[in-house]
Amino acid sequence: MNFYIGYLFAEAVKHILQKNGIPTSDIDLIGSHGQTIHHYPFLIIPCTLQIGEPAVIAHETGIPTIADFRVADMAAGGQGAPLVAYPDYLLFHDSVKTMGLLNIGGIANITVLPANGSFDSVSAADTGPGNMCIDAVVSEITDGRERYDQAGQRAAQGTPHQPLIDEWLNHPFFQLTPPKTTGREMFGHTLAMECLAACRKHSLSDNDSIATLTELTVQTIALYISQFVPEKNPIDTLYVSGGGVHNQTVMQRLNEALVGTAVEPVDNSGISADAKEAIAFAILANESLHGQAGNLPSATGASMRKILGKFVCP
Amino acid sequence: MNFYIGYLFAEAVKHILQKNGIPTSDIDLIGSHGQTIHHYPFLIIPCTLQIGEPAVIAHETGIPTIADFRVADMAAGGQGAPLVAYPDYLLFHDSVKTMGLLNIGGIANITVLPANGSFDSVSAADTGPGNMCIDAVVSEITDGRERYDQAGQRAAQGTPHQPLIDEWLNHPFFQLTPPKTTGREMFGHTLAMECLAACRKHSLSDNDSIATLTELTVQTIALYISQFVPEKNPIDTLYVSGGGVHNQTVMQRLNEALVGTAVEPVDNSGISADAKEAIAFAILANESLHGQAGNLPSATGASMRKILGKFVCP
Repeated sequence: MNFYIGYLFAEAVKHILQKNGIPTSDIDLIGSHGQTIHHYPFLIIPCTLQIGEPAVIAHETGIPTIADFRVADMAAGGQGAPLVAYPDYLLFHDSVKTMGLLNIGGIANITVLPANGSFDSVSAADTGPGNMCIDAVVSEITDGRERYDQAGQRAAQGTPHQPLIDEWLNHPFFQLTPPKTTGREMFGHTLAMECLAACRKHSLSDNDSIATLTELTVQTIALYISQFVPEKNPIDTLYVSGGGVHNQTVMQRLNEALVGTAVEPVDNSGISADAKEAIAFAILANESLHGQAGNLPSATGASMRKILGKFVCP
Repeated sequence: MNFYIGYLFAEAVKHILQKNGIPTSDIDLIGSHGQTIHHYPFLIIPCTLQIGEPAVIAHETGIPTIADFRVADMAAGGQGAPLVAYPDYLLFHDSVKTMGLLNIGGIANITVLPANGSFDSVSAADTGPGNMCIDAVVSEITDGRERYDQAGQRAAQGTPHQPLIDEWLNHPFFQLTPPKTTGREMFGHTLAMECLAACRKHSLSDNDSIATLTELTVQTIALYISQFVPEKNPIDTLYVSGGGVHNQTVMQRLNEALVGTAVEPVDNSGISADAKEAIAFAILANESLHGQAGNLPSATGASMRKILGKFVCP
């Protein structure tokens, strides 16, 4: 699979270059995150595996490739995530405004950049479930006909059941102080099905259940911010990326829940939400090529800054 | 396991430096082959896996590390082996003598360096089983009390049964033209047990069985040389490394079988047999660091020369 995914990645690179009329020779470097197969930073001997062989990407495209960014941070005792914190800092830090970058993928993660702060001031963490539980419940309710709540319409038609949310907020992850990361192992299908069963036990309609899971995502994000972002230095602008940016219920509820913060799609900054993660790893690859560290110990818990990734010649 | 083996490798590096009073700062670069977990170059989508996380080695030792040498050659359509051919060329090629380098590990492999030849003239291949089948049979016969035939003493006390060897030489691998590689998948425990069963069917004594397997290793090496080394340009000196060099029966029989060739331990060249593979990967890492290719398409079947390995910062 490692070679096969490498070929797919190389094909994707060639396709996008051809589609946009960009000659290969214009591309100096590829940064490839790879497909995560597992990620267990908390074992005594940690392990993580991202596949998509960079030697294949480099050979097939003819472009030097840097890949496998997480292991160096983990070798230094970090969680190997979130790595987007430093690119977020480079792209979005502001001398006047405190900026937040919220990516709502399967898991939601946030980077907070205090106004006029150095990279040491950056904090970043996973806040908890993003779309993962919502998607699982929508898929279950619709027998797989719908894979996600399009634009948050189902949630908008339902009513969240706050007592259940209050119960779920007792999950120990939400009490951990950052740096903290989580994943499918904690907030995956099993937990989603337990939540759905609880909703049904409370006789919630399908859309009420979806609204309740949606509200869980919103409130865990808001909870993180209230717990870990100093009140005296609140987030002025929170740019949202990831699939969750298309969920209008999530976006509207975040705006309501985060008083004093402008919650906007990251696209408003000029960076496409769909491209933000890819841009982050291009930046990390560029940093590594220039011998610059890419992790932030304040975000990952590593003992030191590290030059990330493995360099592979074409 | 990938991280764990990485820690063990790092400990080994630190131990050997300390033992020899060499400061870490004297070491510019580590070349780490890694522990091969699987190697299937012949699948439609090839795969290979060497573990021992280089990010861990680099972090723990503070020394830049290059690892994972085989994938680049395989990305270029090669078998990812033998990679020792180019280091053998750099270390041993001779303007007057045709040199052979024979490593008898689990599998036996040979590099042939024609007198005054360029690296294009180098051929290299696995010849077939090395110690793998002998060791398996000794272990089986002694219920695990002996793991190998020490100094070839058991083989020396037995008599090889040539009809069985002739039968085994019909194995299709021995008819393949180089480049060719093999491994435990082909000549491992299963085959060894089949050979032992055949020996017992012919009422061979234990030592006769071991002598027969030992002679198989010798004759497959001799067969390869007679098939693929031009008669007009025979090997003048064949340097032997790997565990097999300590098997006096193998060494004596090779000297008898290869008329006109001086069969000697590679130690006679000034390079320790035990260190030869390690030296080879140090050379490959050094070549990669300087942007020089390390594979030989004539040895691996790759479509082109490639800079091997993945560079990891400490």
